[in-house]
Amino acid sequence: MATNMYDAAYALQKAITENPDFQALKQQYQIVQADPQAKQLFDQFRGIQMELQNKMMQGQEITEMDNMKAQQIVMQVQQDPKITALMQAEQRVNMLIGDLNKIILQPLEDLYGPFMQS
Amino acid sequence: MATNMYDAAYALQKAITENPDFQALKQQYQIVQADPQAKQLFDQFRGIQMELQNKMMQGQEITEMDNMKAQQIVMQVQQDPKITALMQAEQRVNMLIGDLNKIILQPLEDLYGPFMQS
Ligand SMILES: [Ca+2]
Ligand SMILES: [Ca+2]
Repeated sequence: MATNMYDAAYALQKAITENPDFQALKQQYQIVQADPQAKQLFDQFRGIQMELQNKMMQGQEITEMDNMKAQQIVMQVQQDPKITALMQAEQRVNMLIGDLNKIILQPLEDLYGPFMQS
Repeated sequence: MATNMYDAAYALQKAITENPDFQALKQQYQIVQADPQAKQLFDQFRGIQMELQNKMMQGQEITEMDNMKAQQIVMQVQQDPKITALMQAEQRVNMLIGDLNKIILQPLEDLYGPFMQS
């Protein structure tokens, strides 16, 4: 009998939770959460990122002030080794999720051609 | 030993290709491809969809002319039973992919909270 699709998805979910890159991300996240100063800076950084993303998606202008605020927080973030380690761990997991998505969505790409990927 | 993550992803890929909704999508796609008139209309429809999407993403204005062109093609598409069947099949597969993504990305949601879902 064919593998049940949802069983396969849950098996993949489990494999992700056990993956060393995901485990490292979890650990780095907890390290940042446990340091009030790093946590505050990280939350500020995420807040500004989301604010700018929302503005761009709504076609609003990114002001000089927005850019200055963002640059200032990026500079602080780059000097915090706990946050930079977290961001590197995030990047590795994002790449991994991208690789998995490519595999999973291959049947659709085979059907529609590569233009559907974006 | 833990399930290999890539093995799990390929197992899911295989399960998707064997899924009845995906099989139906493939069949409907081939039915449209085999009908020159329906194929041309479907390609036009996709072309306009992508054009409007690109305009919106680049913050360009959607003109009255764009809207009229889009409405006209949508009306034609809605009258073609082969294309409407294809679009319904696409919708079912999109829902299925959405469900799978929810399962697979659960570990990340558990870590970051629901705000990361969008
Ligand atoms: Ca600190
Ligand atoms: Ca026809």
